[in-house]
Amino acid sequence: MRARDLLADFPTVTLDTSVLDAARLLADQDLPGLIVVDPDGLPLSILAGTQVLALAVPGYCQDDPALARVVDEAHADAFLRDVADRTVRQALPPTPRELPVTDPDATVLEIAALMARTHSPLVAVVDQGRLLGAVTLQALMDGVLAS
Amino acid sequence: MRARDLLADFPTVTLDTSVLDAARLLADQDLPGLIVVDPDGLPLSILAGTQVLALAVPGYCQDDPALARVVDEAHADAFLRDVADRTVRQALPPTPRELPVTDPDATVLEIAALMARTHSPLVAVVDQGRLLGAVTLQALMDGVLAS
Repeated sequence: MRARDLLADFPTVTLDTSVLDAARLLADQDLPGLIVVDPDGLPLSILAGTQVLALAVPGYCQDDPALARVVDEAHADAFLRDVADRTVRQALPPTPRELPVTDPDATVLEIAALMARTHSPLVAVVDQGRLLGAVTLQALMDGVLAS
Repeated sequence: MRARDLLADFPTVTLDTSVLDAARLLADQDLPGLIVVDPDGLPLSILAGTQVLALAVPGYCQDDPALARVVDEAHADAFLRDVADRTVRQALPPTPRELPVTDPDATVLEIAALMARTHSPLVAVVDQGRLLGAVTLQALMDGVLAS
Protein backbone atom coordinates (compact mmCIF):
# COMPACT_ATOMS: atom_id res chain seq x y z
CA MET A 1 0.00 0.00 0.00
CA ARG A 2 1.44 3.33 -1.10
CA ALA A 3 0.43 6.98 -0.96
CA ARG A 4 -1.07 6.66 -4.45
CA ASP A 5 -3.52 4.05 -3.14
CA LEU A 6 -4.72 6.24 -0.28
CA LEU A 7 -4.74 9.76 -1.70
CA ALA A 8 -7.86 11.67 -2.61
CA ASP A 9 -8.56 15.06 -4.12
CA PHE A 10 -8.23 17.70 -1.47
CA PRO A 11 -9.43 21.31 -1.61
CA THR A 12 -6.80 24.03 -1.49
CA VAL A 13 -6.68 27.67 -0.44
CA THR A 14 -4.28 30.43 -1.47
CA LEU A 15 -2.59 33.23 0.44
CA ASP A 16 -5.41 35.52 -0.71
CA THR A 17 -8.24 33.35 0.67
CA SER A 18 -9.98 35.05 3.57
CA VAL A 19 -9.67 33.48 7.01
CA LEU A 20 -13.47 33.21 7.11
CA ASP A 21 -13.60 31.29 3.81
CA ALA A 22 -10.81 29.00 5.03
CA ALA A 23 -12.71 28.32 8.26
CA ARG A 24 -15.93 27.65 6.35
CA LEU A 25 -14.20 25.22 3.98
CA LEU A 26 -12.73 23.32 6.92
CA ALA A 27 -16.06 23.15 8.74
CA ASP A 28 -18.36 22.51 5.77
CA GLN A 29 -16.28 19.64 4.39
CA ASP A 30 -15.19 18.34 7.80
CA LEU A 31 -11.53 18.47 6.78
CA PRO A 32 -8.63 17.66 9.13
CA GLY A 33 -6.73 20.69 7.80
CA LEU A 34 -6.02 22.75 4.69
CA ILE A 35 -3.37 22.90 1.99
CA VAL A 36 -2.21 26.43 1.11
CA VAL A 37 -0.90 26.48 -2.46
CA ASP A 38 1.30 28.91 -4.40
CA PRO A 39 0.35 30.29 -7.86
CA ASP A 40 1.71 27.08 -9.43
CA GLY A 41 -0.65 24.98 -7.31
CA LEU A 42 2.14 23.53 -5.16
CA PRO A 43 1.94 23.35 -1.33
CA LEU A 44 3.31 26.42 0.41
CA SER A 45 2.02 25.38 3.78
CA ILE A 46 -0.15 22.65 5.25
CA LEU A 47 -2.25 23.68 8.21
CA ALA A 48 -3.78 21.30 10.73
CA GLY A 49 -7.34 22.20 11.77
CA THR A 50 -6.09 23.79 14.98
CA GLN A 51 -3.76 26.01 12.92
CA VAL A 52 -6.67 27.12 10.72
CA LEU A 53 -8.53 27.99 13.91
CA ALA A 54 -5.45 29.80 15.20
CA LEU A 55 -5.59 32.09 12.12
CA ALA A 56 -8.83 33.46 13.57
CA VAL A 57 -8.01 33.70 17.27
CA PRO A 58 -6.50 37.00 18.44
CA GLY A 59 -2.89 36.49 19.49
CA TYR A 60 -3.42 37.90 22.98
CA CYS A 61 -6.08 35.22 23.67
CA GLN A 62 -3.79 32.42 22.56
CA ASP A 63 -0.97 33.55 24.81
CA ASP A 64 -2.97 34.34 27.93
CA PRO A 65 -6.04 32.28 28.91
CA ALA A 66 -7.07 34.98 31.40
CA LEU A 67 -7.54 37.49 28.57
CA ALA A 68 -9.84 35.15 26.64
CA ARG A 69 -11.90 34.75 29.84
CA VAL A 70 -12.65 38.49 30.19
CA VAL A 71 -14.21 38.80 26.73
CA ASP A 72 -17.99 38.63 27.23
CA GLU A 73 -20.09 35.93 25.61
CA ALA A 74 -21.60 38.09 22.85
CA HIS A 75 -18.20 39.30 21.69
CA ALA A 76 -16.70 35.82 22.05
CA ASP A 77 -19.43 34.37 19.80
CA ALA A 78 -18.46 36.88 17.12
CA PHE A 79 -14.69 36.41 17.19
CA LEU A 80 -14.60 34.86 13.73
CA ARG A 81 -16.48 37.80 12.20
CA ASP A 82 -13.83 40.15 13.55
CA VAL A 83 -11.21 38.56 11.29
CA ALA A 84 -13.48 37.84 8.34
CA ASP A 85 -11.56 40.08 5.95
CA ARG A 86 -8.11 39.03 7.04
CA THR A 87 -6.41 36.77 4.50
CA VAL A 88 -4.49 33.58 5.06
CA ARG A 89 -1.36 35.54 4.05
CA GLN A 90 -1.76 37.92 6.99
CA ALA A 91 -2.24 35.15 9.52
CA LEU A 92 0.00 32.35 8.29
CA PRO A 93 2.30 30.89 10.94
CA PRO A 94 6.05 30.72 10.19
CA THR A 95 6.92 27.90 7.80
CA PRO A 96 7.87 24.82 9.83
CA ARG A 97 11.14 22.95 9.40
CA GLU A 98 9.46 20.15 7.49
CA LEU A 99 6.26 20.25 5.43
CA PRO A 100 4.11 17.11 5.41
CA VAL A 101 4.56 16.49 1.69
CA THR A 102 5.46 13.16 0.12
CA ASP A 103 5.51 11.33 -3.22
CA PRO A 104 3.08 8.69 -4.54
CA ASP A 105 5.51 5.86 -3.70
CA ALA A 106 5.65 6.53 0.04
CA THR A 107 4.64 3.50 2.14
CA VAL A 108 2.06 3.71 4.92
CA LEU A 109 4.88 3.62 7.47
CA GLU A 110 6.59 6.59 5.83
CA ILE A 111 3.30 8.51 5.75
CA ALA A 112 2.52 7.61 9.38
CA ALA A 113 6.00 8.66 10.51
CA LEU A 114 5.66 11.94 8.59
CA MET A 115 2.25 12.67 10.18
CA ALA A 116 3.60 11.85 13.63
CA ARG A 117 6.76 13.93 13.15
CA THR A 118 5.00 17.00 11.75
CA HIS A 119 1.82 16.62 13.89
CA SER A 120 -0.19 16.93 10.68
CA PRO A 121 -3.39 14.95 10.12
CA LEU A 122 -2.93 15.30 6.37
CA VAL A 123 -0.03 14.79 3.99
CA ALA A 124 0.05 16.34 0.53
CA VAL A 125 1.17 14.07 -2.31
CA VAL A 126 3.21 15.75 -5.04
CA ASP A 127 4.58 14.17 -8.19
CA GLN A 128 6.65 15.85 -10.89
CA GLY A 129 5.73 19.34 -9.79
CA ARG A 130 2.02 18.61 -9.50
CA LEU A 131 -0.20 18.28 -6.42
CA LEU A 132 -2.05 14.97 -6.78
CA GLY A 133 -4.10 15.19 -3.58
CA ALA A 134 -3.67 14.34 0.07
CA VAL A 135 -3.67 11.35 2.39
CA THR A 136 -5.65 12.05 5.55
CA LEU A 137 -5.02 10.42 8.92
CA GLN A 138 -8.47 8.83 8.58
CA ALA A 139 -7.68 7.33 5.15
CA LEU A 140 -4.34 6.06 6.43
CA MET A 141 -5.88 4.45 9.51
CA ASP A 142 -8.67 2.88 7.46
CA GLY A 143 -6.14 1.49 4.99
CA VAL A 144 -3.82 0.10 7.65
CA LEU A 145 -6.58 -1.44 9.76
CA ALA A 146 -8.22 -3.07 6.72
CA SER A 147 -4.98 -4.61 5.43
CA MET B 1 -22.59 30.02 23.47
CA ARG B 2 -20.64 28.08 26.05
CA ALA B 3 -18.81 24.76 26.28
CA ARG B 4 -21.98 23.18 27.73
CA ASP B 5 -23.85 24.03 24.49
CA LEU B 6 -21.23 22.41 22.27
CA LEU B 7 -20.06 19.37 24.19
CA ALA B 8 -20.96 15.81 23.34
CA ASP B 9 -20.23 12.42 24.84
CA PHE B 10 -16.77 11.33 23.85
CA PRO B 11 -15.28 7.84 24.13
CA THR B 12 -12.33 7.38 26.46
CA VAL B 13 -9.41 4.98 26.76
CA THR B 14 -7.30 4.07 29.78
CA LEU B 15 -3.58 3.46 30.24
CA ASP B 16 -4.29 -0.27 29.84
CA THR B 17 -6.03 0.06 26.46
CA SER B 18 -3.96 -1.50 23.69
CA VAL B 19 -2.52 0.77 21.03
CA LEU B 20 -4.40 -1.27 18.41
CA ASP B 21 -7.75 -0.76 20.17
CA ALA B 22 -7.03 2.95 20.51
CA ALA B 23 -6.24 3.19 16.79
CA ARG B 24 -9.40 1.26 15.89
CA LEU B 25 -11.56 3.51 18.08
CA LEU B 26 -10.11 6.61 16.43
CA ALA B 27 -10.59 5.23 12.92
CA ASP B 28 -13.99 3.56 13.37
CA GLN B 29 -15.61 6.60 14.96
CA ASP B 30 -13.68 9.14 12.88
CA LEU B 31 -12.54 10.96 16.02
CA PRO B 32 -10.14 13.93 16.02
CA GLY B 33 -8.29 12.42 19.00
CA LEU B 34 -8.73 10.46 22.22
CA ILE B 35 -9.15 11.21 25.91
CA VAL B 36 -7.05 9.02 28.22
CA VAL B 37 -8.72 8.83 31.62
CA ASP B 38 -7.48 7.77 35.07
CA PRO B 39 -9.32 5.25 37.28
CA ASP B 40 -11.65 8.06 38.45
CA GLY B 41 -12.63 8.81 34.87
CA LEU B 42 -10.79 12.14 34.74
CA PRO B 43 -8.52 13.18 31.85
CA LEU B 44 -4.90 12.14 32.30
CA SER B 45 -3.96 13.04 28.77
CA ILE B 46 -5.67 14.20 25.59
CA LEU B 47 -4.12 12.95 22.39
CA ALA B 48 -4.63 14.48 18.98
CA GLY B 49 -5.11 11.95 16.17
CA THR B 50 -1.49 12.34 15.10
CA GLN B 51 -0.39 11.51 18.65
CA VAL B 52 -2.52 8.36 18.65
CA LEU B 53 -0.81 7.44 15.39
CA ALA B 54 2.56 8.24 16.94
CA LEU B 55 1.88 5.62 19.65
CA ALA B 56 2.10 3.02 16.88
CA VAL B 57 5.03 4.32 14.83
CA PRO B 58 8.49 3.03 15.85
CA GLY B 59 10.56 5.87 17.30
CA TYR B 60 13.42 5.40 14.82
CA CYS B 61 11.01 6.02 11.92
CA GLN B 62 9.67 9.21 13.44
CA ASP B 63 13.13 10.65 13.96
CA ASP B 64 14.68 9.67 10.65
CA PRO B 65 12.64 9.66 7.41
CA ALA B 66 15.39 7.67 5.68
CA LEU B 67 14.84 4.74 8.06
CA ALA B 68 11.11 4.61 7.33
CA ARG B 69 11.95 4.51 3.60
CA VAL B 70 14.09 1.34 3.85
CA VAL B 71 11.28 -0.75 5.41
CA ASP B 72 9.73 -2.75 2.56
CA GLU B 73 6.06 -2.40 1.64
CA ALA B 74 4.86 -5.66 3.21
CA HIS B 75 6.44 -4.84 6.56
CA ALA B 76 5.30 -1.22 6.35
CA ASP B 77 1.69 -2.36 5.80
CA ALA B 78 1.91 -4.39 9.00
CA PHE B 79 3.44 -1.75 11.26
CA LEU B 80 0.32 -1.43 13.38
CA ARG B 81 0.19 -5.18 14.02
CA ASP B 82 3.73 -5.03 15.41
CA VAL B 83 2.57 -2.85 18.30
CA ALA B 84 -0.85 -4.45 18.75
CA ASP B 85 -0.15 -5.62 22.29
CA ARG B 86 1.55 -2.46 23.46
CA THR B 87 -0.64 -0.43 25.79
CA VAL B 88 -1.28 3.27 25.79
CA ARG B 89 0.71 3.39 29.07
CA GLN B 90 3.86 2.15 27.33
CA ALA B 91 3.60 4.61 24.47
CA LEU B 92 2.19 7.75 26.07
CA PRO B 93 4.11 10.93 25.28
CA PRO B 94 5.30 13.11 28.20
CA THR B 95 2.46 15.13 29.74
CA PRO B 96 2.38 18.56 28.09
CA ARG B 97 2.53 21.82 29.99
CA GLU B 98 -1.19 22.43 29.56
CA LEU B 99 -3.96 19.89 29.00
CA PRO B 100 -6.88 20.99 26.79
CA VAL B 101 -9.45 20.74 29.58
CA THR B 102 -12.04 23.38 30.40
CA ASP B 103 -15.28 23.90 32.33
CA PRO B 104 -18.86 24.10 31.01
CA ASP B 105 -18.88 27.92 31.24
CA ALA B 106 -15.98 28.48 28.83
CA THR B 107 -16.92 30.72 25.88
CA VAL B 108 -16.21 29.76 22.26
CA LEU B 109 -13.29 32.18 22.25
CA GLU B 110 -11.75 30.52 25.31
CA ILE B 111 -12.20 27.09 23.75
CA ALA B 112 -10.77 28.27 20.41
CA ALA B 113 -7.76 29.85 22.14
CA LEU B 114 -7.19 26.66 24.15
CA MET B 115 -7.34 24.49 21.00
CA ALA B 116 -4.95 26.83 19.19
CA ARG B 117 -2.52 27.01 22.13
CA THR B 118 -2.42 23.27 22.80
CA HIS B 119 -2.75 22.21 19.11
CA SER B 120 -5.59 19.94 20.19
CA PRO B 121 -8.66 19.37 17.99
CA LEU B 122 -10.66 18.40 21.06
CA VAL B 123 -11.14 19.90 24.51
CA ALA B 124 -12.40 17.84 27.45
CA VAL B 125 -15.08 19.48 29.60
CA VAL B 126 -14.87 18.71 33.31
CA ASP B 127 -17.22 19.88 36.05
CA GLN B 128 -16.99 19.13 39.76
CA GLY B 129 -14.62 16.23 39.29
CA ARG B 130 -16.60 14.64 36.48
CA LEU B 131 -15.85 14.38 32.76
CA LEU B 132 -18.94 15.69 30.95
CA GLY B 133 -17.72 15.14 27.40
CA ALA B 134 -15.67 16.99 24.83
CA VAL B 135 -15.96 19.88 22.39
CA THR B 136 -14.42 19.01 19.02
CA LEU B 137 -12.92 21.51 16.59
CA GLN B 138 -15.70 20.55 14.18
CA ALA B 139 -18.46 21.26 16.75
CA LEU B 140 -16.82 24.56 17.67
CA MET B 141 -16.51 25.67 14.04
CA ASP B 142 -20.09 24.64 13.28
CA GLY B 143 -21.33 26.56 16.32
CA VAL B 144 -19.36 29.71 15.55
CA LEU B 145 -20.21 29.78 11.85
CA ALA B 146 -23.93 29.24 12.53
CA SER B 147 -24.16 31.98 15.14
